[in-house]
Amino acid sequence: MKTPSFIAQSFSVSYDYKLHFTEDMFSTRNGLLYEVMTKYSEQDNIKAIFAIDGGVYLKHPKLLDKVEAYCNQYDRVQLEDILVLPGGEECKNDHGNVQKVLRAINDNAICRHSFVVAIGGGAVIDMVGYAAATAHRGVKLIRVPTTVLAQNDAAVGVKNGINEFGKKNFIGTFAVPLAIINDYHFLETLDQRDWISGIAEAMKVALIKDKIFFDFIGQNAVALAKRKPEPMKHLIYRCAEIHMGHIANGGDPFEDGSSRPLDFGHWAAHKLEQMTDYRLRHGEAVAMGIALDVTYAKLTGLIDQSILDKVLDVFNDLGFDLRLPIENDLERKELLNGIGEFREHLGGKLTITLLSRIGSKQDVHEIDMKKMEEAITVRSIAKEELSC
Amino acid sequence: MKTPSFIAQSFSVSYDYKLHFTEDMFSTRNGLLYEVMTKYSEQDNIKAIFAIDGGVYLKHPKLLDKVEAYCNQYDRVQLEDILVLPGGEECKNDHGNVQKVLRAINDNAICRHSFVVAIGGGAVIDMVGYAAATAHRGVKLIRVPTTVLAQNDAAVGVKNGINEFGKKNFIGTFAVPLAIINDYHFLETLDQRDWISGIAEAMKVALIKDKIFFDFIGQNAVALAKRKPEPMKHLIYRCAEIHMGHIANGGDPFEDGSSRPLDFGHWAAHKLEQMTDYRLRHGEAVAMGIALDVTYAKLTGLIDQSILDKVLDVFNDLGFDLRLPIENDLERKELLNGIGEFREHLGGKLTITLLSRIGSKQDVHEIDMKKMEEAITVRSIAKEELSC
Repeated sequence: MKTPSFIAQSFSVSYDYKLHFTEDMFSTRNGLLYEVMTKYSEQDNIKAIFAIDGGVYLKHPKLLDKVEAYCNQYDRVQLEDILVLPGGEECKNDHGNVQKVLRAINDNAICRHSFVVAIGGGAVIDMVGYAAATAHRGVKLIRVPTTVLAQNDAAVGVKNGINEFGKKNFIGTFAVPLAIINDYHFLETLDQRDWISGIAEAMKVALIKDKIFFDFIGQNAVALAKRKPEPMKHLIYRCAEIHMGHIANGGDPFEDGSSRPLDFGHWAAHKLEQMTDYRLRHGEAVAMGIALDVTYAKLTGLIDQSILDKVLDVFNDLGFDLRLPIENDLERKELLNGIGEFREHLGGKLTITLLSRIGSKQDVHEIDMKKMEEAITVRSIAKEELSC
Repeated sequence: MKTPSFIAQSFSVSYDYKLHFTEDMFSTRNGLLYEVMTKYSEQDNIKAIFAIDGGVYLKHPKLLDKVEAYCNQYDRVQLEDILVLPGGEECKNDHGNVQKVLRAINDNAICRHSFVVAIGGGAVIDMVGYAAATAHRGVKLIRVPTTVLAQNDAAVGVKNGINEFGKKNFIGTFAVPLAIINDYHFLETLDQRDWISGIAEAMKVALIKDKIFFDFIGQNAVALAKRKPEPMKHLIYRCAEIHMGHIANGGDPFEDGSSRPLDFGHWAAHKLEQMTDYRLRHGEAVAMGIALDVTYAKLTGLIDQSILDKVLDVFNDLGFDLRLPIENDLERKELLNGIGEFREHLGGKLTITLLSRIGSKQDVHEIDMKKMEEAITVRSIAKEELSC
């Protein structure tokens, strides 16, 4: 009866989801959401709760009525509850919000085959997604991102998260949504800041992966800043497509390795958000982070001045303010700590993605701290000039 | 520039882990844990924190010194912290315990490529596993289960969890550990209750999947109750093997469907644990739950009396007390509510696993509540006689 010394376990799990594009999804004539739910559910009754970003609700005061009317027209859909939750990064700091979503899931008997529909900016999507992924070890999540950043980046991937110990996304999981629905209608009411800032993530993927896309953004920068719909629709589509393609084909969807090209510009971005108490939008911080790392790449000889200028020019044409809100030595040092915190969050070997040319990245595993400090100085301004 | 109406995303993730069997793993001559850590880690330094079940620490007061001495003999291993946490199901009710583990992960800069080693019964493994799975979206977890139940069932699978809203495992994730180490040494100091109760999960998999294994348990029931090591080692090995085989080959490792054969006997078990404020061990409740569902199967004609008797006989020989702690109508009704709660937790269509014969299961999607109430009555005693 001698037993072997180990049992080896090995299996694969397939993940599938769709990102849909539509307009005015809660118009009673728009069948998309109903199709998504009924296509999935094996149950006769489809139970759902909705969690809506308070900022979106303010801009769309009739949204709750529209959701209710939409659901009521279908016999199979049981709308159980609509929560309105505070929006913005602050909702990821106050864990009472996660608790509210969990409680609604419990109170309304939402099971692993029922739905949570999260409508909002990236922060609300992240926070509600975390609650949905952990309740009953995962109920079905439909994400309805309402900002440019959420539609082209935050909501199209496989992560969720909340903040803890002053660290962005310290707590979270990798979890695949049932579907994402990008409704262009929500973008029309965005503040100019939210309209612009999400373009930073498109710049990010264009710079490291697709020169043609970068040229498209450059050529359409002014039109984008002026809120022309067509270039924005293409920008969101292409950015989401590159992002999702990287997850599916990059060989590491749940990030077991140390390289994270999609985190280009993000070590500084995360730290800047935290240092400004999240007054900076994520996209604004990402633009600053990219500008900083491109400046560093120039200072270390990885790229030449013309590439740096081209990147800065497009950001400026789009309307980004790239000046870092860093005004003294202490703040410079604090920002530099972001490199170590970034490594710790990702784990393993320090890996910072830089540019080798437009459309192509280069990972480095060491940072010349003196040169990075110099780059910070180049990109900084006195705090009192900070417009946010 | 017309964009398509959706982007379809599809990818697979491979999961691998090993369950190791050893004795006295913290003896300085036992290289297993070091091998497991160094085989994984690409880093020069291996950072680890240990989270130890307070109940295990009481039985093994030198364990902390042994862990320290073990780690200190290896230059590459950096032992950052040892936490001692309350054990038993209660540790999953008080979320302060999860917070302690998260804080230790943060304070000691444990990253996605560093280790949390959880040593304890199933509850501590579940709770620490949840913290490890959500910190940085998952740091590396090594499970060291110390009870029969944890070694043959709770710790060999892909789930973690904590309790909320009075519901067992309401919050949790599916997460694969880096490795599990079953150290027989820890079983030698178990109370008789903990030694016996874990055998219920072996009975469970034997009954639904493996008649030969059931016969083995039957033939060795008295030897097992008398704590003979060899049959227990085989029992744990075979139970873990069937359990892990089901996860890998059952076609639904992360339980997207509605059928959960491994939850045979568990609808009543979960409810009984909750109704007795977790004074019942999980294994004791599972034995009661199996006895109840086998009685129900007899009452509905699915099996005959001889099978029922055989199952009850083996449980009795092992030393289980199968009498339900249910003494009145109200409690009977409350227990019956467990069926609905079970469906809600799993999601989808009600699916209860019953026996068709020994070694073979049958899923049913409807329960005759009158017959189930009758089965409860058959299996019940007055509360004052309850020995736990």
